[in-house]
Amino acid sequence: MIRVIGIDPGLKNTGWGVIDVAGSKLSHVANGTCVSDGSDLAMRLLSLHSQLSAVIARYRPQAAAVEQTFVNKDGAGTLKLGQARGIAMLVPAQAGLPVGEYSPNTVKKTVVGAGHADKVQVQYMVRLQLPGVELNGPDAADALAIAICHAHHGGASSFAAAVERARA
Amino acid sequence: MIRVIGIDPGLKNTGWGVIDVAGSKLSHVANGTCVSDGSDLAMRLLSLHSQLSAVIARYRPQAAAVEQTFVNKDGAGTLKLGQARGIAMLVPAQAGLPVGEYSPNTVKKTVVGAGHADKVQVQYMVRLQLPGVELNGPDAADALAIAICHAHHGGASSFAAAVERARA
Repeated sequence: MIRVIGIDPGLKNTGWGVIDVAGSKLSHVANGTCVSDGSDLAMRLLSLHSQLSAVIARYRPQAAAVEQTFVNKDGAGTLKLGQARGIAMLVPAQAGLPVGEYSPNTVKKTVVGAGHADKVQVQYMVRLQLPGVELNGPDAADALAIAICHAHHGGASSFAAAVERARA
Repeated sequence: MIRVIGIDPGLKNTGWGVIDVAGSKLSHVANGTCVSDGSDLAMRLLSLHSQLSAVIARYRPQAAAVEQTFVNKDGAGTLKLGQARGIAMLVPAQAGLPVGEYSPNTVKKTVVGAGHADKVQVQYMVRLQLPGVELNGPDAADALAIAICHAHHGGASSFAAAVERARA
């Protein structure tokens, strides 16, 4: 069994979702949202780093996946997102986890079967694949979708194979 | 006297420059470039975090300033820069430093007197204000210009006043 964390980064709200993957069987562990408010950018990034580090310390995932996106035609918005995404990539790397990256289209295609699915469809499929899950919010739902995507794309199974090889 | 670090973030090359500020007198301490290569983004960000943390641990600045910019019309480029900038803001914040932000235009106006000065002019003025400095490269020169800008904009002196108040 491999534990995977998916992360949907944002400067204000960073969603996270942890699942366990045993072959094709997925099960929900936890999901939530790191909220970082205020006018001091450095303090917001520091807060995001602390919150996300605490999540990883608590749930001890073995692999991570982060959504890869940028804001079209809005340099300032993309820069803000990029800063949060830098922290979202750094934290699992500091914990020694391999970090996968998926575009929103790949996540939607994998989880829903269509690249342009809306948020309602994504949440419906996340609930279907993780029975009993209570979603903390839309960003946490997206983060679970990213974790599911990583499981299906073999990020989790290739990690399991690497662990097996290391043990052999 | 206050020690200031200026940082010019980039995913491949992050320039840094440390100066001492005593009233209107500036002196050079050190400058350099953190280089982060390779195809694994998370590992590059981790490497940048380690290198920049080592610089701050070695030179112990009391204030930091980071350049604020984005790449026009290039979402992917801006996202990359944003990720590096997130790390460049996080590292001084983790060390407890206040972090100032300046646009490239503000830096050039402060250091050269013109908002659209070219790199040669910036380097000339950095050399003039920090006699004897040996510049590690263009990114390190920009970082020193950011530190000089922070000194002139009172980021360093307001910090000194706060320290004085705390001691009183």
